[in-house]
Amino acid sequence: MTDKLLFTPGPLSTSLAVKEAMLRDFGSRDAAFIDAVRLVRERLLALVGTSQQKGFEAVLMQGSGTFGLESVLSSTVPAEGRVLIVANGAYGERMVRMAEVHGIDARVLRCPEDACPEAGPVREVLAKDPGITHVFIVHCETTTGILNPIEEIGAVVREAGRLYFVDAMSSLGAIPVDPDRAGVDFLVSSSNKCLEGVPGFSVVLARRSALVATEGAARTLSLDLHAQWRGLEANGQFRFTPPTHAIIALAEALAALEDEGGIAGRAARYSANHTRLVKGMRKLGFRTYVPRALQSYIITSFHYPEDPCFEFSAFYSLLNQQGFVIYPGKVSHADCFRIGTIGQVFPDDVGRLLEGIGHTLRELGVRMVREPVP
Amino acid sequence: MTDKLLFTPGPLSTSLAVKEAMLRDFGSRDAAFIDAVRLVRERLLALVGTSQQKGFEAVLMQGSGTFGLESVLSSTVPAEGRVLIVANGAYGERMVRMAEVHGIDARVLRCPEDACPEAGPVREVLAKDPGITHVFIVHCETTTGILNPIEEIGAVVREAGRLYFVDAMSSLGAIPVDPDRAGVDFLVSSSNKCLEGVPGFSVVLARRSALVATEGAARTLSLDLHAQWRGLEANGQFRFTPPTHAIIALAEALAALEDEGGIAGRAARYSANHTRLVKGMRKLGFRTYVPRALQSYIITSFHYPEDPCFEFSAFYSLLNQQGFVIYPGKVSHADCFRIGTIGQVFPDDVGRLLEGIGHTLRELGVRMVREPVP
Repeated sequence: MTDKLLFTPGPLSTSLAVKEAMLRDFGSRDAAFIDAVRLVRERLLALVGTSQQKGFEAVLMQGSGTFGLESVLSSTVPAEGRVLIVANGAYGERMVRMAEVHGIDARVLRCPEDACPEAGPVREVLAKDPGITHVFIVHCETTTGILNPIEEIGAVVREAGRLYFVDAMSSLGAIPVDPDRAGVDFLVSSSNKCLEGVPGFSVVLARRSALVATEGAARTLSLDLHAQWRGLEANGQFRFTPPTHAIIALAEALAALEDEGGIAGRAARYSANHTRLVKGMRKLGFRTYVPRALQSYIITSFHYPEDPCFEFSAFYSLLNQQGFVIYPGKVSHADCFRIGTIGQVFPDDVGRLLEGIGHTLRELGVRMVREPVP
Repeated sequence: MTDKLLFTPGPLSTSLAVKEAMLRDFGSRDAAFIDAVRLVRERLLALVGTSQQKGFEAVLMQGSGTFGLESVLSSTVPAEGRVLIVANGAYGERMVRMAEVHGIDARVLRCPEDACPEAGPVREVLAKDPGITHVFIVHCETTTGILNPIEEIGAVVREAGRLYFVDAMSSLGAIPVDPDRAGVDFLVSSSNKCLEGVPGFSVVLARRSALVATEGAARTLSLDLHAQWRGLEANGQFRFTPPTHAIIALAEALAALEDEGGIAGRAARYSANHTRLVKGMRKLGFRTYVPRALQSYIITSFHYPEDPCFEFSAFYSLLNQQGFVIYPGKVSHADCFRIGTIGQVFPDDVGRLLEGIGHTLRELGVRMVREPVP
């Protein structure tokens, strides 16, 4: 049976080699597995041009990406802390909800979902509110596919002497980021997005000085970031059962990422996917939600066609029958669907998807108003 | 490369078929995956002779078994609640620590690690302290391998009208348990123990009436049990990315469990493993830590030999080189190591392990004082 191609924000299509790496059983406290964990942690730091020697640490946390975000939020913000959440999408809002659940004091700086937050307003808020200890932002907002300027905002956060916490869920592995230069203290991503592993755990890259200072601040046992790090450092082991197979798969995936030319190589392929997609979709008459200059090559939101014959669930199902999995929208004030261009998909796969979309529109009898392609 | 045989409490040796099920990529919101999740949830309930119709629910929670335990503790005990923790090992103590982290009021009823807690003292504590709302106990204490009488204690808990929360991490799938008859409200286990799946998530079986009553009580977002259940019920989807491959592996593992004759069939094999192990180890001169009548067939703690030539790390490494992974001890007041007899291991594998142990003792020059085998 052939798998469908996943044009989603994840879990994604992965290589056979990555999946085959899971055909082995490792003891979680056995030397062979401990070596693999060490290698994965080292490679994750190297991927963003840093290392333990340069003062950064990689911590793996069981659960999805959200578990990793909650691990950082609930383990690093002290009781008397206050977080500024910069939000322009559902993942910013999820952090607002998370702070609420933990009773963590939060301020929210919102901007529209199709616009990028700017450094100026962040500087102003920080200047006015010295009680803010942490600033949170999403790098690539998967809600829309917009790419937020984490480096410009990071400069302002560092200048103001606050801690900086970035959700790089949909960007790590495909969009260059230098946590040191960007002033990032905690960066969270997932095993199953642009790193092209399988889901099962999240990845936290942390500035050691910031991490060390959080000892005892955790509000949970399982998601205690400092304790998790200490455990990994003490004997290379996880405190609680790790997803051994998913970790071995990431070891394989990180080797493949290196073979592809690292972040630059992967970015080139994803960009080619995205360019082909957007060009083809425009030709079919679709409009993108995010202005072109702000759009990432990770995932793209498209407005529903205006023809009332378009019905998303029928569109989704027909594409599914042809072997293509796309994704529903998440934008608040517009009817959109999303197409991801990450994972083991290639420009020719995007070409086949576009053919499938054209075919599906005809089958549904959807008439598109084709604007002149700029 | 052949994998080592894992004689541990988990992750365990799994079948090739279970691992091969992970050679596919599913979209986490796609119908095929949603169907698999529904099937897994149904089968888990059927495994313990219950169903949604009978008032029980199966919830899957990302992360290790400890994450599942923390999900129940932190989502079901209200602010004004009080938990009685019955503890005779490290996993009972872990729950004490977890309650502490969450600021949950707890009373602890301890008994020695080589003895079983009894129903009488639980009844007395509950009678004296009407503020206790929940009682927690571990079914098979992996610390030692002791099997706690969860049904007798459950009868007392139910009689007293309290909620009953059981850690069945090392027992579900291999030791019969009827949650309804035992008065269990929340039972937690893991994908990677006696169910013989791979690690990546935990399993919570909950009495629906108790679960429904917990709405809004969660202290975290990721581990919110009620919200996780509501999400799965609403559209069959997880709120946050599920470990798709590990879940598909469990679907395969549950089918295999059925083929083996369900819990009775698996119990027979594990018992045969255990019997062979203990007989062989006694013959070699080892002493078990737990009295025979209280010992489960899941995992067994053995005292270190008294000969000073015995050094655990050398013993472990030499066995490892022969392809056998055993497990360090966790008992507080005695030097022990542990050998698990669960997962895809069979009596003949145990036989080979015993030969390996005999060989290793000779290699280390350890002289055993052989007591007459009773």
